[in-house]
Amino acid sequence: MARGSNLTRLGGFNQTVLFDAIRRAPAGISRVELVSETGLTAQTVSNIVRRLLDEGLVVEGGRVQSAVRGKPRTLVRVRPEARHALGVHVDPATLTVVLIDVAGEVRRYARRRTPQAQRPEDVVAVVADEVQRVLAASDVDPATVLGLGVAAPGPLDVVEGTLLNPPQLAGWEQVRLRADLREATGLHVLVDKDVTAAATGEMWAQDGARHSFVFCYLGSGLGAGVVIEDAVLRGVTNNIGEIGNLLVDLDGEDIGLARRGSLAATCLPQALVVRAQRRGLVTSTVAADDFGGVDEVFTEICARADAGDAGCTELLDVAARGLATGLAVMVNFLDVDRVVLGGPAWPRMSRRLLEVLPGLVQPQLVAASTPLVVEGSAVGEHVAAQGAAALVLDHFLSPRPAALVMD
Amino acid sequence: MARGSNLTRLGGFNQTVLFDAIRRAPAGISRVELVSETGLTAQTVSNIVRRLLDEGLVVEGGRVQSAVRGKPRTLVRVRPEARHALGVHVDPATLTVVLIDVAGEVRRYARRRTPQAQRPEDVVAVVADEVQRVLAASDVDPATVLGLGVAAPGPLDVVEGTLLNPPQLAGWEQVRLRADLREATGLHVLVDKDVTAAATGEMWAQDGARHSFVFCYLGSGLGAGVVIEDAVLRGVTNNIGEIGNLLVDLDGEDIGLARRGSLAATCLPQALVVRAQRRGLVTSTVAADDFGGVDEVFTEICARADAGDAGCTELLDVAARGLATGLAVMVNFLDVDRVVLGGPAWPRMSRRLLEVLPGLVQPQLVAASTPLVVEGSAVGEHVAAQGAAALVLDHFLSPRPAALVMD
Repeated sequence: MARGSNLTRLGGFNQTVLFDAIRRAPAGISRVELVSETGLTAQTVSNIVRRLLDEGLVVEGGRVQSAVRGKPRTLVRVRPEARHALGVHVDPATLTVVLIDVAGEVRRYARRRTPQAQRPEDVVAVVADEVQRVLAASDVDPATVLGLGVAAPGPLDVVEGTLLNPPQLAGWEQVRLRADLREATGLHVLVDKDVTAAATGEMWAQDGARHSFVFCYLGSGLGAGVVIEDAVLRGVTNNIGEIGNLLVDLDGEDIGLARRGSLAATCLPQALVVRAQRRGLVTSTVAADDFGGVDEVFTEICARADAGDAGCTELLDVAARGLATGLAVMVNFLDVDRVVLGGPAWPRMSRRLLEVLPGLVQPQLVAASTPLVVEGSAVGEHVAAQGAAALVLDHFLSPRPAALVMD
Repeated sequence: MARGSNLTRLGGFNQTVLFDAIRRAPAGISRVELVSETGLTAQTVSNIVRRLLDEGLVVEGGRVQSAVRGKPRTLVRVRPEARHALGVHVDPATLTVVLIDVAGEVRRYARRRTPQAQRPEDVVAVVADEVQRVLAASDVDPATVLGLGVAAPGPLDVVEGTLLNPPQLAGWEQVRLRADLREATGLHVLVDKDVTAAATGEMWAQDGARHSFVFCYLGSGLGAGVVIEDAVLRGVTNNIGEIGNLLVDLDGEDIGLARRGSLAATCLPQALVVRAQRRGLVTSTVAADDFGGVDEVFTEICARADAGDAGCTELLDVAARGLATGLAVMVNFLDVDRVVLGGPAWPRMSRRLLEVLPGLVQPQLVAASTPLVVEGSAVGEHVAAQGAAALVLDHFLSPRPAALVMD
């Protein structure tokens, strides 16, 4: 049953709208411009800006002379240090922790090899310890930290904040990340899927236009995040984006991992390593489930491709052809005009892939009236960790029409 | 840039929320129940119900004694004849026109073979003529008709309401359906893709729970509609749901139409007819682009399968296996827990497909915590035409949080 809205919801929503407009104008914005950009009345803008000033979220500073007449206009801008968020990305190979301010800037950063878990308690203790180190090493007032976001591979129970039995994390079963991290750190904790966190981080880093895009996440696993008109889709069980099994190559060889001819079997680092081993391109005998070892060989393959090695380039081209077909499936299905590629494996593959992908995807699009934009993440290598922190900022600070409706 | 909300938007939204709650309670609902279901205050409910009564959208009638104490409560219910909508489905084989009331009931219905167009003007004249016949033959007051919805195959320019160059409709190029039908009928006209109209019709027919589902449309073409939390997704160019090229069968034979191993090559009526011809199951030599002729042979194949013919059953099983893989791709990607199958071809295939599909899809789901619901359309064979009419009701009467935000 649809629920109604009321004045309290209206006021809260309009405050997020104004804060968002101010945040997206780092050079400052006047109240008059805020009126024209948000459609709110001058009185409403004035009242809410007063409240944001009182709460220390924005500051006044600088004036601009109006083009026409009247007194100079005072600009307001976000105070980046007013609020912060912590983010953790639990990747099978690497554990990354970031502390960002409300302008999205990284204030502290740390990474380490992901521990091989024996007991869930050990995992939580390691994560809590890293988070507290990062916060302590910064000059940030803990009272300004809105919370801790955690990005992890699925499947997850997002409501409980529990890792169920992620196939990439042996021994990490039923890890109660949210409850246990909340207890260990005292922070408000949000847990979400790595691909959803990455898509949120990408959205948070964008400028003010409305955005719909698919975020294709390439790491030890493969997944997709979906943003439709600046809202992150999560799915009914919050496990959106399982695209690894998607068939992309009718003539794909069986490489002994993932479904034959699938996106996972063509694009994952493990798949590239297996192919390189079979073709005698590398001497390594690393096993496909040794994520740290695979990561090293994968780095070598990409570096050699970038240096002009024909065999390694052909491996990346196999990945590019599969990825192009997979992206075309998603674009044809959802009718988005932009795909963003990112995740831990992406920066190493990006040079060759960005060269060939657009030409491989475009001919497979059915209804495209304009060229599809294919681009690398604007956030970069640590998009999932920054995205984990952005989950917190997004939760508390983004304007969402759905928030107007009573629970 | 995000836009704010205001009291006018708030009032309009709450009116759609209350009307929706009343519409979903065909036996009537009391003001006290409306307060508890919508979260609105008693004063707001009372004021808005007064306005709905004044506009003739709802009526009072019947009383129920409260369980506890106090005077009996008066029930309000929708007056179905208060508003109507017309819908047209332009299918390559059949043109269907319906007139529905605000309760979703079909009041008039007509169908005819789709004209083979020589000139766009002729097409528009035929459609306008059918629409006016249906309205004239009913006892409906034209003043109560909110508008005319048109469902057509893509690609479309939904903003202009123009058919671009639908591959299934030879000669139907640059048909300005919205502008020309508006001129010919004087009605408010909305044009949308057939799959989107069908998904809207399905959503409009549902009870009060929140719904997320993929609607898989099987007709002369193949497409998908997507509903996320009771909002119909349309895509950035309003051409969502192009799933025909999706690869589903690594060992699929080349049947001379559609991409080898694709969903279209396994499930479309044309594909079944070609396979039946190749296997000598039918003597017909109908061409794959003769939509009327294909439709007749397809009907025969399905009827023989239902009567126990092993060869025809195997043809439907090829379609079922392909469809199962395609549905799994969409469910894994978007994390929905329900798929609905419908469209002109569906009722003929449904008996065998509903028997085997659930068992074929479920094992391919990655993150499913509960069994996927696979079901036939609740609306039935004319879901796209009823959906076209529902586009109009949905546009004017459904509560959408996005409508709270200023344009």
